[in-house]
Amino acid sequence: MSDTLPREFALIAKYFRPLAGPGSLNLSDDAALLTPPPGRDLVLTADAMVAGVHFLPDDPPDLIGRKLLRVNLSDLAAKGATPLGYLLTISTPRATPEAWFEAFTAGLAQDQAEFEVMLLGGDTTSTPGPISLSLTIVGHVAPGMAVHRSGASDGDGIWVTGTIGDGALGLAVATGRLADPTGFLLGRYRLPQPRLGLPIGAIAAAGMDISDGLVQDLGHICRASSVGATIDAANVPLSAQARAAGEAWLETCLTGGDDYELLLAVPPAREPALHDAMTARGVAATRIGAFHSGPPHVMVRAENGEPLALTKAGWSHF
Amino acid sequence: MSDTLPREFALIAKYFRPLAGPGSLNLSDDAALLTPPPGRDLVLTADAMVAGVHFLPDDPPDLIGRKLLRVNLSDLAAKGATPLGYLLTISTPRATPEAWFEAFTAGLAQDQAEFEVMLLGGDTTSTPGPISLSLTIVGHVAPGMAVHRSGASDGDGIWVTGTIGDGALGLAVATGRLADPTGFLLGRYRLPQPRLGLPIGAIAAAGMDISDGLVQDLGHICRASSVGATIDAANVPLSAQARAAGEAWLETCLTGGDDYELLLAVPPAREPALHDAMTARGVAATRIGAFHSGPPHVMVRAENGEPLALTKAGWSHF
Repeated sequence: MSDTLPREFALIAKYFRPLAGPGSLNLSDDAALLTPPPGRDLVLTADAMVAGVHFLPDDPPDLIGRKLLRVNLSDLAAKGATPLGYLLTISTPRATPEAWFEAFTAGLAQDQAEFEVMLLGGDTTSTPGPISLSLTIVGHVAPGMAVHRSGASDGDGIWVTGTIGDGALGLAVATGRLADPTGFLLGRYRLPQPRLGLPIGAIAAAGMDISDGLVQDLGHICRASSVGATIDAANVPLSAQARAAGEAWLETCLTGGDDYELLLAVPPAREPALHDAMTARGVAATRIGAFHSGPPHVMVRAENGEPLALTKAGWSHF
Repeated sequence: MSDTLPREFALIAKYFRPLAGPGSLNLSDDAALLTPPPGRDLVLTADAMVAGVHFLPDDPPDLIGRKLLRVNLSDLAAKGATPLGYLLTISTPRATPEAWFEAFTAGLAQDQAEFEVMLLGGDTTSTPGPISLSLTIVGHVAPGMAVHRSGASDGDGIWVTGTIGDGALGLAVATGRLADPTGFLLGRYRLPQPRLGLPIGAIAAAGMDISDGLVQDLGHICRASSVGATIDAANVPLSAQARAAGEAWLETCLTGGDDYELLLAVPPAREPALHDAMTARGVAATRIGAFHSGPPHVMVRAENGEPLALTKAGWSHF
């Protein structure tokens, strides 16, 4: 038999093996080995991204790779966890040029260095359809310190990191519905910033990252915690670029998704600790409302005190 | 805001939540929590399956779910690992009927019970393309006892479990190229049997599961172990149904893939332990050749002692 390997193995060797960390067995085995950090709990999460749904087919491949990694890192951040490694499955049309793999893996390499995480394993396959990616990430957290969606109580403040809505507006830019002279909004859509490294396990009573829209995701915390929530639209932090888009885009900001900011329930007594932690990391945090006893409704209040009418809460795939 | 959840969440609640084990946080959180078994190494592996590539679009959805789980369980089996749990990402066209999800998850439930493994988390998305599935599985193994592809030495026997080629012939049946009066071959293609529970860590010097074809996968062991291999085609165990297909299908059996049997390098001194372990589990194991010093070639010998000419070693996606 010839020693010549098919293209699948050549691509793995050339582009994916350099990403592989200890325990990956050099991506030349059936599975990865990982010795878990002693005395820590593991945090595991998986997200899929499909061309035409989660990214545009002609998006730069390096940014696709980085976003795929970052949306999963954001889920770890929402639990207060530290990343360890990830597994990647990637289904591509046979005609996908080698340059696509080169750029995609270059993006992964860049973010692996930035976020100190390693490729552990995965699978490459062909598909007759659009590029389909799936990434499973493993992190670790001190036992009992993971932040859950449940745990919010009457009187806890509702806090968000960063600014809300830039990602959804960036999608509008990418699809030609909005102007973006500085490129800021498109950048926020393409390259979210996972809020890792914040000691939220000691601060937040509940939390999650905002991926499907602030209002819908806040509803998840309400249902998991059996509380209601009221937020003031005027307090939701918007970037200068989002403000410049105008009032007509406010609902998009509140419901559009792709923020990857943290949404936290913070008891008033822990607000000083929150301020200290956010200041130490240079991350802005804003109180946008409060949880209260009652059914798990989310009320968005306009400046006149009346409920804001929203046509939809957030993103659903079906 | 309404409490009515979009279809995505309703599907998760109805069909996936019943599959979720401890640590999944009821699939209503950003990530799963797992306390690793103390003093054990973790084994992680991921496989993707795409409609039209790995299964046929009209295959029974319960069998698709079970095969997806089983091909990953087979990777754990190849390391001598015990399953813990899995994460699943599933991208489906919007028009996918609810009955598909019902049957798909029923298949997963059946195999979760059979193999004692739990759903930990994942993601559901839409796709404009074919159904795309990705499963990451986590198992555990005693430190240092995982079987690797590297480790085979001159003189080790080459052993396989079960029979070889049924899966590849089953694909030929599914695509109308071969008759299968008993349905045995189709069954072997659709529902592989992961060889879990064998103490191969104490027996095999190297090993893997055969997914891309016996000859190609044996080549992987040769390269990882820096040895050559010679197998006798006449010694490769074929089922009665594969023998009935005739000599014209021999190459398909040797190179076709989808076997999910174990391919092991066993030093002669450990053959008694191999026999005992296989007998205890009721699994057949057959010696088909031996590794030898030299370049990492695989030679398949015909009954006349001459090398068998094969047109390809196995399956590649590109």
